Amino acid sequence: MKKTILIHCLLIFTFLSFQKNSLHAQSKIQDSFLGFHKIADSLIFRSLSEQRGYQWLKELCDIGPRLSGSENSLKAIYWAEEKMRSSGLDSVWLQPVMVPKWIRNNIEEAMISKSKNYFGRKLKIASLGGSIATPKKGITAEVIEVRSFDELKMLGSKVKGKIVLYNRAFDNSLVSTFEAYGKAVDQRSIGAIEAAKFGAVASLVRSVTSKKDNVPHTGMMNYDSLIEKIPHAAIGTFDADFLSEAIKKEPNLKVTLKMNCQSFPDVQSYNVIGEIRGTEFPEEVIVVGGHYDSWDKGCGAHDDGAPCIQTMEVLDLFKRLQIRPKRTIRCVLFINEENGLRGGIEYGKYADTAKVKHIAAIEADRGAFTPRGFNVTTDSLTIDILQKWLPVLNKAHIDWIRKGGSGGDVAQIKNAKAWFGFVPDDQRYMDVHHSANDTFESVHPREMQIGSAALAILVYLLSEIGL
Amino acid sequence: MKKTILIHCLLIFTFLSFQKNSLHAQSKIQDSFLGFHKIADSLIFRSLSEQRGYQWLKELCDIGPRLSGSENSLKAIYWAEEKMRSSGLDSVWLQPVMVPKWIRNNIEEAMISKSKNYFGRKLKIASLGGSIATPKKGITAEVIEVRSFDELKMLGSKVKGKIVLYNRAFDNSLVSTFEAYGKAVDQRSIGAIEAAKFGAVASLVRSVTSKKDNVPHTGMMNYDSLIEKIPHAAIGTFDADFLSEAIKKEPNLKVTLKMNCQSFPDVQSYNVIGEIRGTEFPEEVIVVGGHYDSWDKGCGAHDDGAPCIQTMEVLDLFKRLQIRPKRTIRCVLFINEENGLRGGIEYGKYADTAKVKHIAAIEADRGAFTPRGFNVTTDSLTIDILQKWLPVLNKAHIDWIRKGGSGGDVAQIKNAKAWFGFVPDDQRYMDVHHSANDTFESVHPREMQIGSAALAILVYLLSEIGL
Repeated sequence: MKKTILIHCLLIFTFLSFQKNSLHAQSKIQDSFLGFHKIADSLIFRSLSEQRGYQWLKELCDIGPRLSGSENSLKAIYWAEEKMRSSGLDSVWLQPVMVPKWIRNNIEEAMISKSKNYFGRKLKIASLGGSIATPKKGITAEVIEVRSFDELKMLGSKVKGKIVLYNRAFDNSLVSTFEAYGKAVDQRSIGAIEAAKFGAVASLVRSVTSKKDNVPHTGMMNYDSLIEKIPHAAIGTFDADFLSEAIKKEPNLKVTLKMNCQSFPDVQSYNVIGEIRGTEFPEEVIVVGGHYDSWDKGCGAHDDGAPCIQTMEVLDLFKRLQIRPKRTIRCVLFINEENGLRGGIEYGKYADTAKVKHIAAIEADRGAFTPRGFNVTTDSLTIDILQKWLPVLNKAHIDWIRKGGSGGDVAQIKNAKAWFGFVPDDQRYMDVHHSANDTFESVHPREMQIGSAALAILVYLLSEIGL
Repeated sequence: MKKTILIHCLLIFTFLSFQKNSLHAQSKIQDSFLGFHKIADSLIFRSLSEQRGYQWLKELCDIGPRLSGSENSLKAIYWAEEKMRSSGLDSVWLQPVMVPKWIRNNIEEAMISKSKNYFGRKLKIASLGGSIATPKKGITAEVIEVRSFDELKMLGSKVKGKIVLYNRAFDNSLVSTFEAYGKAVDQRSIGAIEAAKFGAVASLVRSVTSKKDNVPHTGMMNYDSLIEKIPHAAIGTFDADFLSEAIKKEPNLKVTLKMNCQSFPDVQSYNVIGEIRGTEFPEEVIVVGGHYDSWDKGCGAHDDGAPCIQTMEVLDLFKRLQIRPKRTIRCVLFINEENGLRGGIEYGKYADTAKVKHIAAIEADRGAFTPRGFNVTTDSLTIDILQKWLPVLNKAHIDWIRKGGSGGDVAQIKNAKAWFGFVPDDQRYMDVHHSANDTFESVHPREMQIGSAALAILVYLLSEIGL
């Protein structure tokens, strides 16, 4: 029994001293968090009151869209390099990357060319990224509608010689627009391959968007080297509905499709990189960035211009506030996420052999709407620690830190301790995504600037505390 | 020592049995929460896929703005009554309320009428709610600018005979637009009183808005029965800046102000009320509502049309899904929040003596943007309990429940257990608030419908679990 008493006493003692230590540690943490709160307040104040990122976005959007390999994309690259230099960063450099080059060109037309009721009716389309052109005189064929690849398979030989209309709608009943996007985008990404398997001559894809309008949304598509390539284009959702009704009434109606897009050999491009070296642990690097290329409709304001500028502004805010980070913070603008991921892959290769150690990498590629949280790919213990930072991050509307995916580019950096994905509100993102709707005007200055501050606070905490 | 052992044993036993009971209770709660999750999923699905609230909003906006006492406000009241009946509620009724009547009329003009450089330049203004008119020929006077009442006081006799321009800007460096609004709105609410104290002949107020444009934002203003009444109007922020610069260059410049707004005796109006009676505790009432009147610019879509419709849709969703609540749920559309709070006060009086017991009251009056959380006025213990509901509410983007203010109307209901304020994202609210910008087009269907679902889930949990 004496042994039991001893054990009990030990247990109680351990518990009490644990409590005491824990309280002591906690008060120490609280002290340093007081300082963090002050810095967070300053970052928020400067970001929101000066709106430098928003002004930069105007300049970037004035350059135009930034499709990989385009002249505009190079202009934008040199513009970002210059902006980073103007921030007074310790180093700014361009990392060479070879990227694919595809040009939309001036012809993307669809018209109902045989019909009793609808002859001459034009349809709003946009060639999908990487599509081949049609012959000069176009492709004229009947249209067959499907909502799934299973349905396509069931139709089998009926598809031969026809234009397939993929018309599975974006599921607006889902709260997450990214989830809805994921459930519809296969039609765009592999639709041409699947349709060609059954002898289709071309395919049209209902625009993958949450919005009810007639603006076609472009995006990446794939071919299979073993399957014949057919032209593949997005169609506005209004016109997808119209065409669907029209072929119900007139199954023999024909559409003529003309596209003159072209692919070229790879060309030289660059990731844009700028950094502020750490004062205490310069060999520990925190990457923050987005993909700098965009599609060639609109100006890629939300995808991914504004988020890229938010990550540039993180470093600019550090300089404006004369914050000298303990660890190195590095902004990386990755080229070619949209149709190749070459920039991310190239940076990942460098990171594999770099002398510096990447401890964390943050990607911003979900638009520049009001911040909500951060997804993190890391172990549960690290997430627990990160969640203790929420009272500071909450000042810039970061309400949560959760296990979740980061982003395609930063995921190429191996051996980091944690990969973060910045998560702003997503309700309006798919309205503009990959389309002419993605303009400077679609970005709200306050929403964007709170995002810059949220990213800056996270980077600051990582640079002070480490992982 | 034996006693100590006994105490230890008791402590350990208590701890273990507490753990066991707590685990048992927890698993029971988890079981019922499984059911709650299912209902939440259904509410979200129906709200987002059918978008009935958004369609209703279109109808309401087509009626036009709903200033208390106006003909439109009565049309809108009968429209809501009819909609509630069409939902198949158990009871629908109008609660009579006498409301103030003020009419803007057709003249609200400001022009620079004496100036070397700016003669004839018009300024965008909007009479503030309750203002007196100018004489027919207008008021012509020099303009004196202040940014605070202290500054006004310092100027003292210099103010006499002049038009005061209140030009303290909306503080866009603050993350909360409501906080920024609160820091500027005194110029509008008591500006006429303060200026008249020093002999001013009229006053202009820089629009209390986060947006950079030239749309004047109206709103409530006050007079003091002991101080002379002077005309009081809002001016577009561009024109406030312009006028500020102009009078720096030409202090003797004069502005002519013409307004023909009018006040009338009180008129009859109504709160619109509909309810579904509880199956188990019909005498326990949960109120959900907003204020149904709006200002007379735009159509009061975000303030407070869409939120009112979200609260109507809560009950409609219950009917659509055939959910029979255990407690009575009641939608109340309060009239006259903007310039009198008469509807809220009248309902509060009724609640004081009603046979039913109001256990909770939820107000939606912060626009129909993506949900973020609920403010709650209640004791800490109740907040702790409510926070356990977050996993269910989170499905509709409710990330937090915090101690905080509910709203002016539901606060009139005394003796409830908890008062809730629905908190959507607030970044764009003050862009449109009280202005011609507050149109149907400014409301995003998905953002609005997630809000309907969030409110419905909270009401459902309250009706099932009680407080």
